[in-house]
Amino acid sequence: MKKYKLSIDMLGSETKVHEVLRGIDQSLKRNINYKFFLFGNEKLLKKEIDKYKELIKHTDIINCTESIGMNDKPAEIIKSKKNSSMFLTIESVRNKISDAALSFGNTGALMSYSLLEIKTLSEIKRPSIASIWPNLKGESIVLDLGANTKLDARYLIDNAILGSSLASILFKIEKPSIGLLNVGKEHNKGKEEIKTASEKLKELSKSLTLNYQGYLEGNDISTGVMNVIVCDGFTGNVSLKTAEGTAKLFQSHLKDAFSSSIFSKIGYFFSSIALNSVKERLDPRVHNCGILMGLNSLVVKCHGQSEYRGVSYATDIIYSLLYNNVNEKIKSYVSEIQEKLGK
Amino acid sequence: MKKYKLSIDMLGSETKVHEVLRGIDQSLKRNINYKFFLFGNEKLLKKEIDKYKELIKHTDIINCTESIGMNDKPAEIIKSKKNSSMFLTIESVRNKISDAALSFGNTGALMSYSLLEIKTLSEIKRPSIASIWPNLKGESIVLDLGANTKLDARYLIDNAILGSSLASILFKIEKPSIGLLNVGKEHNKGKEEIKTASEKLKELSKSLTLNYQGYLEGNDISTGVMNVIVCDGFTGNVSLKTAEGTAKLFQSHLKDAFSSSIFSKIGYFFSSIALNSVKERLDPRVHNCGILMGLNSLVVKCHGQSEYRGVSYATDIIYSLLYNNVNEKIKSYVSEIQEKLGK
Repeated sequence: MKKYKLSIDMLGSETKVHEVLRGIDQSLKRNINYKFFLFGNEKLLKKEIDKYKELIKHTDIINCTESIGMNDKPAEIIKSKKNSSMFLTIESVRNKISDAALSFGNTGALMSYSLLEIKTLSEIKRPSIASIWPNLKGESIVLDLGANTKLDARYLIDNAILGSSLASILFKIEKPSIGLLNVGKEHNKGKEEIKTASEKLKELSKSLTLNYQGYLEGNDISTGVMNVIVCDGFTGNVSLKTAEGTAKLFQSHLKDAFSSSIFSKIGYFFSSIALNSVKERLDPRVHNCGILMGLNSLVVKCHGQSEYRGVSYATDIIYSLLYNNVNEKIKSYVSEIQEKLGK
Repeated sequence: MKKYKLSIDMLGSETKVHEVLRGIDQSLKRNINYKFFLFGNEKLLKKEIDKYKELIKHTDIINCTESIGMNDKPAEIIKSKKNSSMFLTIESVRNKISDAALSFGNTGALMSYSLLEIKTLSEIKRPSIASIWPNLKGESIVLDLGANTKLDARYLIDNAILGSSLASILFKIEKPSIGLLNVGKEHNKGKEEIKTASEKLKELSKSLTLNYQGYLEGNDISTGVMNVIVCDGFTGNVSLKTAEGTAKLFQSHLKDAFSSSIFSKIGYFFSSIALNSVKERLDPRVHNCGILMGLNSLVVKCHGQSEYRGVSYATDIIYSLLYNNVNEKIKSYVSEIQEKLGK
């Protein structure tokens, strides 16, 4: 039986070792063909993993003493920190010892190491960071969330392909609906690059497995009208962070409201379970994972303060993408397109 | 005593006449030097206004039979709908019969009429839509929210001036802090146009009344680290709509949570007052008003389904801006800058 091998960078973030171990242990119960490589403090890891008898059998520990800090500049660490847990994690994927990488650390550094070592698929010009965004109907894929801030029609089309491949595997939909994020729904709205991408995507949707539906606006991300929302990395990054900020503002107002009177305190007592479930559904420590798409191997970045649920969620996603051979799917999309465009 | 004259477009939206009248009646109690011109259905307006004895004395009604629809294209209506309530509202400001305009209708049409009839201040290249955004500490100004989707350093600097003038009047702060929306806080982050604007704003802040503080990210909008958040109209529009979508998603999850069990239903009973106050603090029907800045006169667009509280809130803001002569303030900022730059 084929093993799916995942390298995990265990240093350089506030995520606790026991949260990671508990998370991957849970995922292993569902995905029994997993093999893990943990890059971190061997002594600590050996001590903590001791309570997970099954996980021990599926795990190799690689001792690392150096880590990348959250404030380290990508340009600087690329030359100097070749013994860091992050570099060694990526290196193991590059050398085919492992199939995918997971880190909780510095996103810029992870992106730089991935670009330099793993490189993009020859068909994709630039990688993209995708995330699974909750909406009123369930979930959708939004990308790019900050890998590439340049607005360019070709990159938007690449993002549509990457997002569609991801959504079709994760949501088990044959032709996920794709929308381009814009400031209005009418065809004459927005910037030239977006209009060009829209025209090309319409053309490609006529015969390909792509299912481009047109423009959508910021508020449509949460209503769930499309499976895949495509934008440039600048817009996506601001948008994601604005949504996180708004959710925090809402929670803070709610907390104030519940401590405002004796009645609301009683109310809180009776409704705390329901409220916690809402909080959890929108908690970035549980749901914030950025999938670096378009590279020769899969790299995933989780929130810097992930909990075990976040870890097991991300680990499940990686398994599903590996099992369904996401990169082959992307390649077949792209070659279809290249044939069609006669390039 | 000087009268402050406000023209209101009463047609072309889902906002009810009685909500508008109740809203401006409340504002009149606080701002007794207001004079209103209502452009709408005379018969209906006369009937409804009858219960506001004081308001009648301060109001003229101008009968209009034509209205701009929410789906009308700006390019088309500019030529054809010269008898619409919106056009006549703007026209009254252009002809100095009135000092400012308020509408609940089609934003694109309002923008086009304003640009053509009222025109921008000679010192400002492009107008901008500003809004008052709630945050953890209170409120901040965000602009541009969609007047001008082109990213350009000069426009960003104009937006900083417009936003700073607005914040200093509305929040009564001498030198409001200004931040540029970006994908990171480090000086080397983001697009060229944003970097150029940042350098110039730093330069201008050394001696001017501008107080530019550097970059901020999407999540900082809600924490309230700056009084003014500056961005291009594309980013601002997507960001605002994403925040609205997230707030709706949160409310919907909350509603589900409260009906999930008998305990949470009891909880809801006791906490409903507190919860409604949260809902109201983030309700766009109450707080969504877009201020068109940089024109020769003030034009304000409120949510298409405004309630009386939203109307009175917007009417208070307009009074405050007129009373404090916002356009003179903007002009003095700009002439200071022009002197400094030797243009």
